This record gives sequence, C-alpha cells and structure tokens, in this order.
Amino acid sequence: MKNIKALVVGAAGYAGGELVRLLLQHPAAGIFGLAGHGNAGRRLDEVSPWFRGLLPDGVEYIETLDLDRAAGADVAFLALPAGISAETAAELLRRGVKVIDLGADFRFKDAAVYEQWYKKPHARPEMLEQACYGLPELWRQEVAGASLVGNPGCYPTSVQLALAPLLRAGLADLSQPVIADCKSGITGAGRKEQQHLLFCEANDSINPYGVAGHRHTPEIEQGLSRLADEPASVLFTPHLTPMSRGILSTIYVRLRRPVGQAELRRLWQDFYADEYFVRLLPEEVWPHTKWVAGSNFCDLNLKLDERTGLLVVCAAIDNIVKGAAGQAVQNMNLMFGLPETMGLTQIPMMP
Amino acid sequence: MKNIKALVVGAAGYAGGELVRLLLQHPAAGIFGLAGHGNAGRRLDEVSPWFRGLLPDGVEYIETLDLDRAAGADVAFLALPAGISAETAAELLRRGVKVIDLGADFRFKDAAVYEQWYKKPHARPEMLEQACYGLPELWRQEVAGASLVGNPGCYPTSVQLALAPLLRAGLADLSQPVIADCKSGITGAGRKEQQHLLFCEANDSINPYGVAGHRHTPEIEQGLSRLADEPASVLFTPHLTPMSRGILSTIYVRLRRPVGQAELRRLWQDFYADEYFVRLLPEEVWPHTKWVAGSNFCDLNLKLDERTGLLVVCAAIDNIVKGAAGQAVQNMNLMFGLPETMGLTQIPMMP
Amino acid sequence: MKNIKALVVGAAGYAGGELVRLLLQHPAAGIFGLAGHGNAGRRLDEVSPWFRGLLPDGVEYIETLDLDRAAGADVAFLALPAGISAETAAELLRRGVKVIDLGADFRFKDAAVYEQWYKKPHARPEMLEQACYGLPELWRQEVAGASLVGNPGCYPTSVQLALAPLLRAGLADLSQPVIADCKSGITGAGRKEQQHLLFCEANDSINPYGVAGHRHTPEIEQGLSRLADEPASVLFTPHLTPMSRGILSTIYVRLRRPVGQAELRRLWQDFYADEYFVRLLPEEVWPHTKWVAGSNFCDLNLKLDERTGLLVVCAAIDNIVKGAAGQAVQNMNLMFGLPETMGLTQIPMMP
Amino acid sequence: MKNIKALVVGAAGYAGGELVRLLLQHPAAGIFGLAGHGNAGRRLDEVSPWFRGLLPDGVEYIETLDLDRAAGADVAFLALPAGISAETAAELLRRGVKVIDLGADFRFKDAAVYEQWYKKPHARPEMLEQACYGLPELWRQEVAGASLVGNPGCYPTSVQLALAPLLRAGLADLSQPVIADCKSGITGAGRKEQQHLLFCEANDSINPYGVAGHRHTPEIEQGLSRLADEPASVLFTPHLTPMSRGILSTIYVRLRRPVGQAELRRLWQDFYADEYFVRLLPEEVWPHTKWVAGSNFCDLNLKLDERTGLLVVCAAIDNIVKGAAGQAVQNMNLMFGLPETMGLTQIPMMP
Repeated sequence: MKNIKALVVGAAGYAGGELVRLLLQHPAAGIFGLAGHGNAGRRLDEVSPWFRGLLPDGVEYIETLDLDRAAGADVAFLALPAGISAETAAELLRRGVKVIDLGADFRFKDAAVYEQWYKKPHARPEMLEQACYGLPELWRQEVAGASLVGNPGCYPTSVQLALAPLLRAGLADLSQPVIADCKSGITGAGRKEQQHLLFCEANDSINPYGVAGHRHTPEIEQGLSRLADEPASVLFTPHLTPMSRGILSTIYVRLRRPVGQAELRRLWQDFYADEYFVRLLPEEVWPHTKWVAGSNFCDLNLKLDERTGLLVVCAAIDNIVKGAAGQAVQNMNLMFGLPETMGLTQIPMMP
Repeated sequence: MKNIKALVVGAAGYAGGELVRLLLQHPAAGIFGLAGHGNAGRRLDEVSPWFRGLLPDGVEYIETLDLDRAAGADVAFLALPAGISAETAAELLRRGVKVIDLGADFRFKDAAVYEQWYKKPHARPEMLEQACYGLPELWRQEVAGASLVGNPGCYPTSVQLALAPLLRAGLADLSQPVIADCKSGITGAGRKEQQHLLFCEANDSINPYGVAGHRHTPEIEQGLSRLADEPASVLFTPHLTPMSRGILSTIYVRLRRPVGQAELRRLWQDFYADEYFVRLLPEEVWPHTKWVAGSNFCDLNLKLDERTGLLVVCAAIDNIVKGAAGQAVQNMNLMFGLPETMGLTQIPMMP
Repeated sequence: MKNIKALVVGAAGYAGGELVRLLLQHPAAGIFGLAGHGNAGRRLDEVSPWFRGLLPDGVEYIETLDLDRAAGADVAFLALPAGISAETAAELLRRGVKVIDLGADFRFKDAAVYEQWYKKPHARPEMLEQACYGLPELWRQEVAGASLVGNPGCYPTSVQLALAPLLRAGLADLSQPVIADCKSGITGAGRKEQQHLLFCEANDSINPYGVAGHRHTPEIEQGLSRLADEPASVLFTPHLTPMSRGILSTIYVRLRRPVGQAELRRLWQDFYADEYFVRLLPEEVWPHTKWVAGSNFCDLNLKLDERTGLLVVCAAIDNIVKGAAGQAVQNMNLMFGLPETMGLTQIPMMP
Repeated sequence: MKNIKALVVGAAGYAGGELVRLLLQHPAAGIFGLAGHGNAGRRLDEVSPWFRGLLPDGVEYIETLDLDRAAGADVAFLALPAGISAETAAELLRRGVKVIDLGADFRFKDAAVYEQWYKKPHARPEMLEQACYGLPELWRQEVAGASLVGNPGCYPTSVQLALAPLLRAGLADLSQPVIADCKSGITGAGRKEQQHLLFCEANDSINPYGVAGHRHTPEIEQGLSRLADEPASVLFTPHLTPMSRGILSTIYVRLRRPVGQAELRRLWQDFYADEYFVRLLPEEVWPHTKWVAGSNFCDLNLKLDERTGLLVVCAAIDNIVKGAAGQAVQNMNLMFGLPETMGLTQIPMMP
C-alpha cells in the first residue's frame, strides 16, 4: 500500500520532523530512510523523542546520506541549510530519484537573483530551468510533470496565496511597492542553538529582523511578477513572534482602478472555490495562526480601506506545514499522480 | 463506511471540539449531530472557526439536545458541566443510544462518595452499577461490553496509568498516602469566561489550586484502591500551568519491600508491553507534555530514590485527548468492536 | 515628602494597576484613593493580589467615586472605559482637581472626529479646547501648563514618536497614506472576561483585528497632521500578539525627496538627543518589546529601503507604561513642576 | 551618595543582568565594574540591549576579571558557573573585597557533601568555615558580620522559607522524607545555547529533570536540618516550566503531632510578622509566580490535609531576584549596615 519510498534528508530539524510526522500518516508514501549530518548515527527518537514507538523498522536511525543507497528511493525531500541542496539534488536526479528541495536553491528562475541575495554562486545554475516552483494552487500543472521541485519559502507561500486573485485579475497597481508585514513563529528560524532563539530571549516579546533585506524578498517579487505578468516590487518585513508555529502576513496593495469590497471578495471566492487548502473567512473574521496549526490550510481575508484606497489582505498558514513540509507532500502527491490532499487532511489543532 | 453515528453534546467546549476533531478523522464513526446549550443555534465554525470547511453537510449547527432526534444516533458523547449528565444519559440509554459521559456522574461506584465531593445528590444513583469506568488499558473487558461509560477525569487517567503496574503487583505501601503533584494546561479549566483564565492572568505564571480538596481526589483513590485491592489514600495537588494542553503528574509512592530500579523498570515494561498508547521512555528521559500533544499517548518514566526509599513516577498525557476526547473515542472503539486504536493514531505535534 | 495626592479611578484594570505600581514608587506623589465601579467595595489586593502588603494605610479599598471626597486630591487619573470620563473630569476640575484621562474623551481637538469614530455624541465638547494632548516629548510646554490632559492611546504614542523627526523636518510625502502595522500584547484589550482573551484562545497565535476601522486611526492622523502641519492619512492595522505587554509598531512612509540612511539616522538622533525616554538603537539592532518591559522607554530604529524608496521605522513601547500609566505619570510630573523622569526610572525587566 | 562600589562578575548572564538592574536602582551602591569571560571585551548593552542608555560612564564594557583592579571594589558579586568561584573569592578577599558568591562553592558547611554531589574536589575547603549562608530571614545576624557569603540556590531559598516556621517549632516529623516538588521558569537554567532551552523546545510544555539527583538536594537538606536541629532528608523534583521567571515549590511534610490549621497558620504568621519580603497569603489564596515577578518577595500559603495528615506548603519567588540577585543585594545591605530593604522595594510586575 505504501508504494512510494520517500527519503527525508535533514530529519532532525523542525521541517524534517514535520515531514516525518506527515509521511507516517500518509496512505501511499512510506519513509525509506532518514538522513542528516549533525545528528548522523543517532536515533531520530533520541533527537526528537516524540517519535518514540512510531518509526517503522529499519528507519530509526539518521544516517549520513549515501547516494547509492538513496537511489532506492522514489523521492527525496531535502530540508537542508541554504546552498548545499543543489549538488545533492543533481546526484539524486541522476540516479532516478525525484527531488523536492525545501531550501532556496531551486526557487529562482534567474541564478543572478539567487547569487545577489544569497551572496554566493549558484552551484548548479543549469538545473534552474528544469526545476518547478512548487506552489500547487498556482502552478499545479507544472508540478505534476516535474522531477525537481523547489518548494516555496514559508513567507512567500503566504504572500503569493494572499495576492494571487488580485494579480491574476490584473487589478493591482504595481507601480507602487507591495508591502508585506509578516509575523512568524520561532520554528521559522530552525532548530539552531543560538542565543536569540532561547526561550527566555524570545518569550513574551516580538521584534522585526532583516528589515529591508530578507532573502525571501526576491522570491516574493518573482512570484508576484509572474502572477501579474509585470514587474512587482515588494517591501517585506519579517517579525519573530512568541509562538512555536505559524505565519501571519498582513499585506498592503494599491488597486489599479476603484473596485468595491463585494467585488473584491467575489474575486477571492471564485479564485479559490475549488481549492481544498485555501479558506476565505467570512467578512470581519480575521485569520489566527493557531486556527491552521498542524494543518495544510491557508486562511485568508481582505478588506478595502475606503479612506486610503489601499487593500489589506491577511493570510495565515502553519509555517512548517503549508509553509514547508505539508506543501512538499502536496507536491509529492501531484508528482506521483495521487489525490492532492492525500495524507494532508489533518484538522487544525486548536487550542 | 462511516457506519457509527455519533452525537457530540457540548461541542463548543474544548473537550467537545476535540471530539469533533477526532471524529472527523475517524474511519468508522461519523458525526451525527452537535448539541449544546450556551451556543445552541450557532454554527460550530462560528464559535470555533478552525473547523471552517470541515463539517459534514447537515451538522454545521449546534442544536439544543432533542432526545427524540438523538435516538437516531448509535452513541452519544456528553461533554457537559458536572451534574447534568446523569438525566440526559438515562434518557438516551432508554432510546437505545450508548453513552460515553466525559463528566463525573458515572465515574464512581459509590454515590455517597460522589455526593460528598460534588456537594449534591446524585441524580441517578441506580445507574452507577451498570456504568463502566472507561480506562481501557486497565478495564478493557468491561468497556467492551458496556452501554454506559464514565470516561475518567484527566488527572486520574494520568495517575492511574502511572501507578497501575506497581499496584497490580502489590508492591505499593498504601499505609502511607500516595502524593500526586499534577500540572495541567489551561484547557483543563474549560472554555469559561473567567478572570483567572485570561491570557494576561495565566501567562508566564504557575500556581496551585484546590489544594487538599480537588474533586479528582476520590476518583484517584477509587482507582488506585481497585488496582491494589486495598484502600489507598491520595494527597493530590493540581497546578495551573502556562500552556494550552497537557498534564504532567509527578507521583511519590512508598514501596512495600525493597525493589531495585531495574526490576521496577521491568515491571512497567511488561505491564505495558502490548499497549499502543503507553510509552515507557528510556532511563533518564523524562516526559514532556508537548511530546504527546494532540495524541492519545501516555508517556511514562520512573526512578527509585535510593536515599529516601521513595519511588517517583512521572506521566504525561494530552489532557483533552487521552485525558478526555481521545480516551472517549478509544472507549467507543471498544464498545463497537472496532480496533482500539482506530482514528487515534495521530502523531504528537511538536513543536 | 509625598506631597501630591493622586486619585486612581479604575484601579482594578491593567492600566489602573500599573498606575498604582508606579505611584507606590514615586518620590513625590502618593495614592490618595482608589476608585472603580465593577469592584467597588473590594480590597485592591483581593482583586490584584500582587499588591498585598504594599498599599498604604487607608487606601486598601476600591471605592465608588465620591466627588466631594475626591476634591481632596491634587490630581485624578481616570482609567475608565471609553466615553464615561468626560463628565467625571468636568466635576473634578470644577473641584480644583487636575485630571489626566487615560481614555479617549480628551484626545481630539475636533468633537466631530470623536463622534464619527466612537459612534456617540461627545459629552463635553466645550472642554476639548482646554484639554492638552499629553505626549510630553512632542508637546511638553502645553502639558506643563495644563489642568486637563488627554493621555494618548498606546498605539498612537508609538507611531507619533516613531515619525515625529521626519514629520517635523517636513520630509514625509503625505500625499500617500502612512501604513502603521502594529502588534500589541494582550493587556491592550483590558482586563475583560471575554472569550477571545482567554489564555487558550490567544496563546501561541497572532491575529489582526479591527482592520481598516480601529478607533486609534483618527488619533494617529490628528497627531501626524499636527506634527507635519499638513493633513496625513493613515492605514492602521492592529494585531493581538501572544504576550502580556508591549507594542511594536512597524511603519512604512514615503519620503518627499531622496534622503540617505545616514542623514535620516542623524535626524532621529538629533531630535531625541535630550529625551531620556526615547532610545535610538544602533544600526541593524531592532526593537524588541521585552527590552522595554515595565519601563517608560520607547525604543526606535529605522531603515531606508533603497529598492522601493520607502522608509521603515520601528518603535517598541510597553503599552501599559509609556502607552498608558507611565506617560500619565510623566504628564503629572510636568503639570506639577517635578523633574519629568521622577518615579519613572525603572529598568526594563528582561527576561 | 553611591558609596559602595560593587563589582559584578558574570554580568552577561541572567542573574548577572539582574544584579545590574538592581544595582542601577540602588541608592547606596554603584556598579564599579562588569566582568565575565565569554563576553569579555563586549559592551553589556550589546549583549543585553535592554541596558542601553542606562550604564554609568566607564562601566559599559564587560572585562576579563583583573584582580588588582578589582581590589578597588568594596564588594564583588560572583555569578559564575559552579566550581570556579572559590579561587576568585579567595583572591578578592585577600585584597579586602567582600564577596557574595551566587554559585554553590560556599553554600556547604561540609566539603565532602559538596564533593559528592558536584563530583569534584572543593578548591578551597578551608574557607567554608568563614563563609556565611546568606538567607537573611533565617541567618540575619551571621550575614551582618560576614565578609564571604554563599548566596543560597533558588530552589533551596523557596523550600527553606516555606518550612522554617514548622522546623524551628520542632513540629515536623523528619523521620519521613520531606517532598519538595518544584517548578522553575527557564531562566533557572541560565543563558546557555542548548537545544532544550530553545523557545520551540520549551514553549507550551512542562517536564521534570534531574529526578532524584539534583544538586540542590543536599543544600536543602543541610538547611532544613539546621533549622530543625536534626537530620532531614528530602526528595526534591525540579521541573522546567514554560515561563521566563519564577519558582513555585509545593512541599509535603508530615507533622510530629496533630496540629490544627488555625494554629499552623498562626505559626507562619508570627514567624514572618516582621519580615518585609515574606508574605503569607490569605486562606485559600495560593501563590502565583507572576505575583512576585521582578520583586524580592516570597509568597507563602499552607494547608493541612486532614484526610492524610500531611501538611502542604507552597512558596513562590522570582528565581533570579529572591532566588539569586535580589537576595544577594539583601545580603550586601546587611554586610554594609544598610537598611535591609534598600534598593529592593520593586513592586511585582504583573501582568
């Protein structure tokens, strides 16, 4: 029954752990192996004890990635620090393993943009063309035929889903920058032993970071431009919020011409009418990150500010599900011809 | 496929919401109806917006309980304030509906104990005999044949699972009181608009409450006495802990005769060897409530303090899953001859 | 020594409690009495037990406001729900008591603006002229001579302090709306027994509210317009953030003409060079709300986004200190000719 | 005015930072210098940015400890990892600097106990005799005359203050172990970059640690034995609680002879009648850690469980104030003949 053999690289991190959680519940995909560097040789349930008793026989240990053994997998999820995915992906593809990369290496169409923002040469620029940007609600057809998917960043997922109906309808005035003020739970920073991520530093406090310089900026711009079919510029401000999971994006955009609130709402309603994972909330009910926790949902709402003529769109996702592991599994489902929601129907866990 | 029709009474509360979450994912049981008083007439996804898009057609609204309509259900879960379940249960049983009561009305064998602690006469003392105490790991056979189950309290579940191996082996010295120092997440207090449950009152703070007088005391004593087949007395101190879910119970008990750490560990290991939902952690790995969040697991560990001769046993559960809704579904599975873990294999959600 | 007799009306709320905390530590002002409605007749240290042992003799009880007894006070702080301050203030002033109103009744110059946003007639429009808007860093001289001060709202305090240097310098392009994306701790919503303020509803989650319609919008617009001496329009989005205290405002504004980052920094540096309570952080060190917790500080930083030409300014305050009680005491100091920082030199409490 | 020159060693940690916070507000003691190893050469307000603008001229930098320069200080506070204080203290004392050590090196009367629990030889066993155990409410006279003070551990402070009235009255039955079940905020673990202290690991979760083996056990036993003048044994279980500050200790003790609740209450009342920092709460009002946050208070309450004959005593302190830096300043006040509460009258910061 579990016909698809999936390899998780970077299993000890938060996104990696979430991949394990989702794959353990997936009807058609099983975990073929767990890999990682920092924790190679240790049991996953030692590093992440909540998995005790749940790992299938033979996949208890995190191993150093062995490409030849990995060749036995059907698909590999790479949850690795920025920059080291490209080479691994190339080797896996060469061995017939499809690759879904949760890092940034395959998100850009233009290697120059990557190099400018990530401050290093791209290891495999020639692969960018074959890579597909894996945001299924927007680019489903491409994903279905892909062998290599660049899984979108968490912030960019929320901003693109929030604005897609407006951009596709050509109603955004992109002569002005879009402003994306985004608030992320602390898993977004990874499972790193850094002082600013300690409980006592982050608890009961909020702060911006990477102001006017965060690397997700060009990914958002590329996405919005493609949706609108014209260049978009974005001012993106991320914030570290005292919660474990979740991203809330509050987005400000100018309209090309006057459109009423009712018409705008209809636009979103129609655009997402058949999308299981996108929920437009009723008027004046605003997304709460916890209402999507643990699920692959993206909750949306919007309001036209008649006084200033600006449109406010809010989107909430679980950053490590729809913003990482869940979307990766959704991509896998498409790549292997499975129902898109398979294994992704977890109900949000609230409270 | 969803053959069993389940009615959820008290759907707007935290335990009720968790029942909905679990039943929506259950392969064999479907939600037949939602009832409640405070919120009757409202959509559940208005009161609990995280359920948006997830409720089956026809069960979107919370209704005032109509016994004749309820007769169409196979089983009713009652998540009601203490004291008002008994009458409802009697009426439902009379109509052929099996009842799993998440309140205290059917947890006691002796109405006098109930009346002493709950300060009111029991509405249906004659029903206590037919009621089964639904802690499946300990009383599985009884549950399987029952039509009326008193679902255990959250604190008592954790304490009984923690001590059962020792008590059944006759190794606890019950001439001394057992001390149960228990820490609960704030969902344990219910979804009530009370000042001490406000975020700003409870955040970043811990406090005891109901010291030497909490109503779960006699339930724990009844359970431990039954396991040991001799009277047990318990000093139980609950604490309100700044977290949404989870109970951690730290229990201190004297041994009847000297037993070594290794032998004690083996006792627990053997006792729970075939229990899917109970996980004995490795030596010196102590339960964390978040490691069981959203799951029906009970994580345990123990250590003999050689200096004082006391045994310390720690248990962690999710108070609204294994401590309420999850255990209720586990009981339902048994009552209807389904595999006990059906619909209850959620992986803990950590972080 | 404690010559100034201060009356606290609304002592049982969060802002009222903070006034008590600050006045107990103030060298020159003592608490003359505690008043309130909901809790009249109860001891303050019963309602707010952390004050046990700290209240001066004779001021332990919260009393129904008695205007004739209140006449014995030198100053009254009104921390009351919106709309019921105006009448009380009039009566107190008539009896020679100076008034600092922490509500909205005396924040507006134009009663029509108040009436439009607060949806009711202003009880005492004729008093607006004599009322002073108590933001000392901006309007110190006026405060010094005032008998009636409208204490600014928490959000407006942070936004005005953030933008004042730019606006006074005439460098903001106000033909475009200013965008203020603000995140508040949950004390901002008051000590109200409402479901959305329960720990389990708010914990580990963030959400916007009052989008494009919050009542602090016109107060911010009035403040910015006055600073710039031209009409400013603002799109203000508040968010409920899972922390007890603090406001972080992230503000986006267009410049009238190209100005470099260094010149902008100098502008803020010079503007606040002599202000004890405003701290401009070093380049790339961004305000954290916890870094000002319990103190009257406002931490600021700014960055020009060269790509879009927009300026981002971030401000953090403790919403119930600089955003309410602390600023009120600062105003009192000015009104009574005391050193402005007296009783307000608490060090931030971090962690 | 600030006549006493105080040196803070370990200023970059949480206890060190709290010493800085308290000394900055102290009327008679000023900060002479800041020392530390890990962060030597950095500004304190770079490592702990909340101190920006608050450090006196000349003491902005954390320096490597220079003993000869340190000789200019009147008193040194050592907030260092266990084991490296003893040598430093010896050198400082030799140079005429009084020493208050916040570590464990001078808490024990018997070097053998230290060596058994801390698993290493004591560097200066000959100094133990001259060292005074600095718990002023219990050993005030000794502290007043001391040059070297071992500042008590956070957990032991709470447990000793909780039980002192009973022990001094000879009413505890110490033939049975005392059980101390203690819950600590995460600052208790220090400012260390360790995985289990990350926000996402500790948030929304509670866990025991160091069960039946924590190093504060012998310190508690020594303290209780001294108070009772007979050997006491303790079973101590610490827990990591998802809050920044605070310790709540729930303590279970058997009485030597039957004593009623009223008489017991009177015992505590009388014992602490003149103690500013100890607050006995009213019947059935239980300590909340947040109610003492940022203050030097210890809140207490107790209840006799008539069913089991056991007495439950609960104590709450701020672990880095009364449990560390505040108590250290209290000791300094005594050592220098200042009023004991000087600089320690901060009101708890709640919420």
